[in-house]
Amino acid sequence: MTDRQNRRVLLASRPEGEPKPENFRLETAPVPQPHEGEVLIRTRWLSLDPYMRGRMSAAKSYATPVEVGAVMEGGTVGEVVASRNNAFREGDMVLGHSGWQDYAVSDGQGLRRLDPAHGPVQTALGVLGMPGMTAYTGLLTIGQPKAGETVVVAAATGPVGSAVGQIAKIKGARAVGIAGGAEKVKLLTEAFGFDAAIDHRAPDFAEQLAAACPDGIDVYFENVGGRVWDAVFPLLNDFARIPVCGIVSHYNDTELPPGPDRTPQLMGAVLRKRLTLRGFIVWDFASQARDFARDMGAWLQEGRVRYREDVVEGLENAPAAFMGLLKGKNLGKLLVKVA
Amino acid sequence: MTDRQNRRVLLASRPEGEPKPENFRLETAPVPQPHEGEVLIRTRWLSLDPYMRGRMSAAKSYATPVEVGAVMEGGTVGEVVASRNNAFREGDMVLGHSGWQDYAVSDGQGLRRLDPAHGPVQTALGVLGMPGMTAYTGLLTIGQPKAGETVVVAAATGPVGSAVGQIAKIKGARAVGIAGGAEKVKLLTEAFGFDAAIDHRAPDFAEQLAAACPDGIDVYFENVGGRVWDAVFPLLNDFARIPVCGIVSHYNDTELPPGPDRTPQLMGAVLRKRLTLRGFIVWDFASQARDFARDMGAWLQEGRVRYREDVVEGLENAPAAFMGLLKGKNLGKLLVKVA
Repeated sequence: MTDRQNRRVLLASRPEGEPKPENFRLETAPVPQPHEGEVLIRTRWLSLDPYMRGRMSAAKSYATPVEVGAVMEGGTVGEVVASRNNAFREGDMVLGHSGWQDYAVSDGQGLRRLDPAHGPVQTALGVLGMPGMTAYTGLLTIGQPKAGETVVVAAATGPVGSAVGQIAKIKGARAVGIAGGAEKVKLLTEAFGFDAAIDHRAPDFAEQLAAACPDGIDVYFENVGGRVWDAVFPLLNDFARIPVCGIVSHYNDTELPPGPDRTPQLMGAVLRKRLTLRGFIVWDFASQARDFARDMGAWLQEGRVRYREDVVEGLENAPAAFMGLLKGKNLGKLLVKVA
Repeated sequence: MTDRQNRRVLLASRPEGEPKPENFRLETAPVPQPHEGEVLIRTRWLSLDPYMRGRMSAAKSYATPVEVGAVMEGGTVGEVVASRNNAFREGDMVLGHSGWQDYAVSDGQGLRRLDPAHGPVQTALGVLGMPGMTAYTGLLTIGQPKAGETVVVAAATGPVGSAVGQIAKIKGARAVGIAGGAEKVKLLTEAFGFDAAIDHRAPDFAEQLAAACPDGIDVYFENVGGRVWDAVFPLLNDFARIPVCGIVSHYNDTELPPGPDRTPQLMGAVLRKRLTLRGFIVWDFASQARDFARDMGAWLQEGRVRYREDVVEGLENAPAAFMGLLKGKNLGKLLVKVA
């Protein structure tokens, strides 16, 4: 094992605004050795997700930032290639957090064994994993869509957005998806079954959204902010619910947008329309993991939920793929096939 | 009855910014006559409340605006002076919505008979009425204060704020009140039992608030917005709840404040801190009226909730009193003693 190398992508420096290639560094290190009680995991799949942008910054958040010089964090599916832990055997496929590297050692804490007979293991990083559960918990616990209501979500071909739309449909709501570009928009209605799909790049995007929501918006699953929020805001109905899952269009902001300050406008609408805005991260709803696995597993089997993957080959391509993710260049759940 | 006159305060014109005397007009009309099934009510007490500023504007809200030339709306306690409705007798004291006038006719819909033996009837406009129930429902349903948590409320000597603080204390939370001026601040700790009280006019108001909330803020009952919100915002804890009941400091705004636009900052905090912002009006929680009457009645009897009234004599003084209310000139629940 000592002749093998461990390629690792480190955070080289903190980005100012958009992450750039120089913020990452690919280096090669010896493969670590598992001690008693540990396993050595070879990464097969690395998940790339918008939340990672936050970890690159030093700002206080719900998670500790990645240190400069440390391996970039990330959810992974890997294979146990050496085990000194009775709970795992060589050849086991496991869901874990190895990060952006070929190999990692783990004491087994937080690892979950995956059964390849149950379907493609990398779905544990997408529709059956964190993004799928983000959609499920945020939409159902905070959004609470009712039959006949209108649910709007952006980044709708992504793993969270596509699940939000499809779960909304399962609950009898009308699903309106927003995405960038004709190809994605087409996919929303044709592959994911959205009732309407809008291209946020269209010059008349706000008008198109209003036309697609003739009865207003009851649930807006917020994951982008910015222009989409501006178009959604006037369409919100009384008692609308807004699960706030992300504001990816602002993650690279280095300063606030110019004035006027629209905070009083937002608070005024919260009051007059009795809106609910509630932020969440999926781990706040960890107790729902079993319900999620049961429901989403069934919906997948029944063909009521579909998913789409965007696979990039090679760990060395992870930084470029991640930078593209923040610009919406992926189509579906972005995964790096590491080995 | 025909020789008596009905003085009425009309909305003469819609205010631009702060209401001014010329936006109101006092006129005299004949006393209306009750038809079969109706009662004639002589107004004893008129409640003045910040929400009335909204009714003076044409802007869409949860309630229809008062028409120009119509009698200003308002909750009242009055005496039935003529009855052609079997449900009411002359001499009955009733809670209703006669508005800013001496007399009004009602078909009995929405009237509630009050028993003077149960305490001062005008409390049905304050601690035992809409303001008290606003505090009770918003704080308990949305704010959900837990023992040991910190609850902050502004306009804290007012009928809503003082009830919020005292109910928070009953629930075992720490209550921090904000008010304008030394007299009010003193009242907060000495009469209403707040743990700490801050003067929002102090130049170092934000620092004082931070010092009074060493463990951060878990519940902020929002009824003012503006400077208070700015000071509260950085102190909000993870999972803080913000019942949005009013933004009285903005009711006279004619334009948005200058930039930058801090909306992304707010949405970012909602996300990172998993805040809940939820707007409400008391009627959204009408089903809790019985619980409220039971609990608040008991707390008053036990001396655990106190209230304070600011009584203005004479209907003709209602406009000036209302203009003062929007500037925080009242001390306690503002009532007009009409007759």
